[in-house]
Parts: sequence; structure tokens; C-alpha cells
Amino acid sequence: GYASGVRKVTLIPGDGIGPEISAAVQKIFTAAKVPIEWEAVDVTPVRGPDGKFGIPQAAIDSVNTNKIGLKGPLMTPVGKGHRSLNLALRKEFNLYANVRPCRSLVGYKTLYDDVDVVTIRENTEGEYSGIEHEIVDGVVQSIKLITEDASRRVAEYAFQYAKNNNRKKVTVVHKANIMRMSDGLFLRCVRETAQKYPEIQFEERYLDTVCLNMSRNRAKYDVLVMPNLYGDILSDMCAGLVGGLGLTPSGNMGLNGALFESVHGTAPDIAGKDLANPTALLLSAVMMLRHMELNSYADKIEAAAFAVIAEGKYLTGDLGGKAKCSEFTNEICSKL
Amino acid sequence: GYASGVRKVTLIPGDGIGPEISAAVQKIFTAAKVPIEWEAVDVTPVRGPDGKFGIPQAAIDSVNTNKIGLKGPLMTPVGKGHRSLNLALRKEFNLYANVRPCRSLVGYKTLYDDVDVVTIRENTEGEYSGIEHEIVDGVVQSIKLITEDASRRVAEYAFQYAKNNNRKKVTVVHKANIMRMSDGLFLRCVRETAQKYPEIQFEERYLDTVCLNMSRNRAKYDVLVMPNLYGDILSDMCAGLVGGLGLTPSGNMGLNGALFESVHGTAPDIAGKDLANPTALLLSAVMMLRHMELNSYADKIEAAAFAVIAEGKYLTGDLGGKAKCSEFTNEICSKL
Ligand SMILES: CC(C)[C@H](C(=O)O)[C@@H](O)C(=O)O
Ligand SMILES: CC(C)[C@H](C(=O)O)[C@@H](O)C(=O)O
Repeated sequence: GYASGVRKVTLIPGDGIGPEISAAVQKIFTAAKVPIEWEAVDVTPVRGPDGKFGIPQAAIDSVNTNKIGLKGPLMTPVGKGHRSLNLALRKEFNLYANVRPCRSLVGYKTLYDDVDVVTIRENTEGEYSGIEHEIVDGVVQSIKLITEDASRRVAEYAFQYAKNNNRKKVTVVHKANIMRMSDGLFLRCVRETAQKYPEIQFEERYLDTVCLNMSRNRAKYDVLVMPNLYGDILSDMCAGLVGGLGLTPSGNMGLNGALFESVHGTAPDIAGKDLANPTALLLSAVMMLRHMELNSYADKIEAAAFAVIAEGKYLTGDLGGKAKCSEFTNEICSKL
Repeated sequence: GYASGVRKVTLIPGDGIGPEISAAVQKIFTAAKVPIEWEAVDVTPVRGPDGKFGIPQAAIDSVNTNKIGLKGPLMTPVGKGHRSLNLALRKEFNLYANVRPCRSLVGYKTLYDDVDVVTIRENTEGEYSGIEHEIVDGVVQSIKLITEDASRRVAEYAFQYAKNNNRKKVTVVHKANIMRMSDGLFLRCVRETAQKYPEIQFEERYLDTVCLNMSRNRAKYDVLVMPNLYGDILSDMCAGLVGGLGLTPSGNMGLNGALFESVHGTAPDIAGKDLANPTALLLSAVMMLRHMELNSYADKIEAAAFAVIAEGKYLTGDLGGKAKCSEFTNEICSKL
């Protein structure tokens, strides 16, 4: 048996550079003596009894039992029948809020200083409903689906997040001037939720205006909450401000569990070469530790990673350095 | 009668700062001896015989006759029944392609140097279809409508634009990984159009990736073509890179005419105070002159405006200067 207090965490190493960066995170966690046990699973779709491809049952069971997981990047199988595996996981586990904090890193200069925003994205519906029709030849409609339940749920999550993380302001991002009913409903739900949190500032902004203010470096945003597609866009844009998806963590919060993931690609060109940057997955794992209330481990690991980046001696190629993934990883371990 | 070759142009001065910046453009055009005659019209909605509010017939007739117009910012009337007047005009005149060039200005430093991109936005359908339903209480759908005709039309426009303006590359921006049928159709239309222009480079990129590369300053884009909402977002983002909507022109191309407009707001806080920056409207008017093949006037006016901005002595408040709108305008006139 295991020492009491040791909890199991599902690990989906992923494709391409996924296994290397997952191994890096595991090594760092071991060095930090984090009291968890990894349960690695494979999510490569398998053909089920009905002939359709789906996530293997063992992987589903693991996440449902452990209620917490860490996931590397996944390749989307090529071919018409396949939807993104990332999306399949969000759906399978009802991961309704996607949280992506973007903070400027000491030691990695970008054009922007002091970025510190969190995008919270509705993760189950909106433009990602998957409902599309060809009405007649050459005329297609896609349905953006907004429900009161999902909107309130993510709104509530955003304000709770702000409260728990000592954030001052929540901005709802929308195009209710155009999509009056759908974005209008989303907006109304967030507005009503805001009333329950008088201690947190609340504002409403158009998506285009937010993009403009961000690229213009006039942004004074804090926590941003929005429908699915807008979150896809804004979270990438915010990540760009601090240096890209190799540096930003992400968490998918569900009703019955949470899945933390790096959202960069599988980088097949450098896979297996010990060149990948594990920072995004490591910071996602740090978010996961905080979610598990293992804050002291989270703080320790984060501090070590930030210190190595700030020192700048062991940066991977994407950050302009020459270090291998293993060298960067060892340097973090040696600080722990 | 007028001198032969003098063409009429519809002028919609607009609300807020609209009349001041329109007057500035008119003054500069007079100084440059541009052979056009302005026909000013009011587009404030009036109640028609059917009881509904609409654009006054005189304004509609003017644009339809002249086939060319310049438009300042318009306020959207408050109240449930009113849709944006900007959109009503795009619809009324079938303005199918919205073109927004963004170029770094000498004399106005931003975080980004050498930005030079053009967004070309499908302007009649997509997420702006206006078709929305409440299916049951708390469940709303908005329809994104993509047609082959509109997609081919804007694709053709984009490649023609690239060709005529000596541009090297067209990038189609999409989320066909999510909206497989609708964005898939758009993508396919642009891809097929690209084959007719082998001399122009063509690439396909996800919207989120484009946002990321832009904010990260890794963007090597030239002409970007995309569905309606993506254009709304990206054009604002690009404008932000070069200093905001006060500096960027815009043209709406239709089957029977074209309408050029500044896309910033009406700025009611500074309206009537001679503080507004007329640059966006002036550069839109310059785009209009090129469209009318009055290139020498366009070049002359543009050069004068850029020179005044580069000298930096007569900048308006939004650019960090202290000049009044009229001082900036007079300085441009004195260079002509
Ligand atoms: C991979 C893709 C389906 C996904 C999305 O569009 O949500 C990605 O861009 C993301 O942000 O997680
Ligand atoms: C005013 C608004 C309706 C409009 C739009 O959403 O298209 C504006 O943002 C634009 O970009 O022209």
C-alpha cells in the first residue's frame, strides 16, 4: 500500500514531445517529493463494439476515478471522421471552464511588461457545439449554442476564481451588439452573477475592443470571462503577449474532476530530440497542485522553474537558449 | 454645370466628432484641388410609411447614384429595435468586402515596427447573419451562415487586391478544425480561388494561431482574408499594433459602389471641441481616391499627412500631442 495522503493523478503523456515533457514534470515532482502517484493512460482512440472510434475505457475510468489529470499535447488523427481529441476529452468529462493564466516571466522579455491576466472560457458549447448543416448546395449554417445553465456556471466559476485568487476585476467579453440573443444571454448571466460579488469590480467589453486594447498595450484587464470561441482567440493572444504557448498553463475544470494541460502543439519536428520546453506542462501541473490544495509543493516548484528561467543559463531553444529539455529539468530539480 | 470630370461623392459626416473630421477632410481636399464635389447626406433613421425606422431615402439614392461615399462614425441609436446603423449600410448597399490596411506610421512609435498587413473581411453574412432563436427558455442559438457565393466573391476580391497592390501573399484565416462545414466551405472557396493566382503565395492558418503570432510579434502576414467576425477581431487587433483606430482607414466594397469609413467611435467626450484626430477618415478618403483612380491626388494628400505626423509638431491628443484638429488640418493643407 501507499503512504496515506498519496493521491493518484491520471497522466496522459500525449503525442510528439508529450512523453518527454511529461517525463520532465514527473522528474521534477519526484525531486520535490510531491505526494502523488501517477497513473499513465493512453487516450489514442480505439474502435469500440459499435465500430466507432472513441477514447479507451481504461483512460475514461482513470480520470473518473482519480478526478484529476495532467495531459500533454495530443495529435488530432487525420481523416474526416475524427474530431479533435482535445475536444473529445473536454466533452467526455464535462470540463466546463477553461482557465488560462498569462503572466509575464522575469527573465523572458517580450514587448509587454507586467502582463497578468486570466482568461476563463466557457468550454462546452457556443461555436463549438458541432451542430452544422448544409441547407442547400453551397449554403452552410453552423449553430452557436448558448444556454443559461452553462453561462451561469462559467460566470460563477469566474467570480469564485477571482475571489479565491485575490483578483480585483472580472471583464465579460462579448459581441452582444451583433449576436444580441446568444451573447446577450451570456452577458446577462454574467451580469447577474456579478451582483453576488460586490467586492469584485465588473465590466463589459466588446471582443474587438479587448483585442485592440491588448495589442495596443492599453489593456488593464484582470480576469476575463467569455464564450468558447472568444476564449480560444483571446487566450492565444494573451499567451503571445508573454511569449507563447510554451510558457502558459491551462486547466479545464469540470463538475467531477479537472484536467490540466499544456495547449501548445505536439511539435513533431523536435519530438524525441530532448529539445522541447516543458514549462507549459510544468506550470499546468503547478496549477493542478494548487487545485489539489498542495500549495506548498506548487509554490516550491514554481519558484524553482521561474528562477531557472530568470537566470537564463539553461533556456531551451524556443526561448533563445541552447539547453536541452533534460538540462533545464535537472537545473530545476537541483534547486528543489 | 460643373467642370467635366468632377465627380460627386456622397458624404455621411456622422455623429459626435464626425462633422469636425469630415470638415477637416473636405478642407484638405479643397487645398489639394481634388476634382470631386461632395454631396452631404444625413443617415439618421427616420420612420417610414410602414412605421419602421430606416435610412432616409435621399441618402440611399445618393449612394446608389454616386456609387461612392465617405462616412464618419455613427452612433447606434439606443433601444431594442435598433441594429447598428453601420451594419444597416453594409447591408443596404451590399458591401461585401471590408478592407482595412494597417501600416506602421513613421513618427508614431508603437511596440511594433514595420507592420504592413491588410485584413479583408467578408462583410455580409457569417456570424452577422442576424438569425437567432430562443429554442426553449434559456437555450439560444445564433446561426453562422456561410455561402459559397459570398465566400468566392470575397476570395476573388482578396486575390485581385493582392495582385493590384503588388502584395505577395494571401492568408486565409479560419477555424475549420472546429466549424468543419461552414469554415470548411469558406476555406475551400479561398483555396480554389488561390489556384487561379499562382503568382501569389497562399497559406491557411487558424485564427487563434494568427492572433498568437501577431501579439508575439512573429507575424509575417500580408493580405488576410476571412469570415465576418474574424475580420472584426483581427482588423481591430492589427489596428492596435500600429496605434489604434484613429490611424487606420477602411473601405467597404460593394457590387454597385463602395463606402469608405473611419471605424473608430463617435467620441462624444471630445465632440465639438476641435480635439479629434481626422487621420483615419482622411486615410479612408485617400483609399477612396485610389479606388476612383485619382491616384496622384491620393499620393499627394497621403504624403502630406504622413509628413505632418512624422514631424510630430502638430499631433492631436490621442497621439500624445497638443494640436487641435484644425491645426493638424491646416498643417497638412500648407504642405499641399
Ligand atoms: C486544438 C483546438 C481544437 C483547440 C481549440 O480550438 O479549442 C485549441 O486551439 C485550444 O485552444 O485548446
Ligand atoms: C460597430 C460594430 C457593429 C462593427 C462591427 O462589429 O462590425 C465595428 O466593430 C466594426 O468593426 O466595423
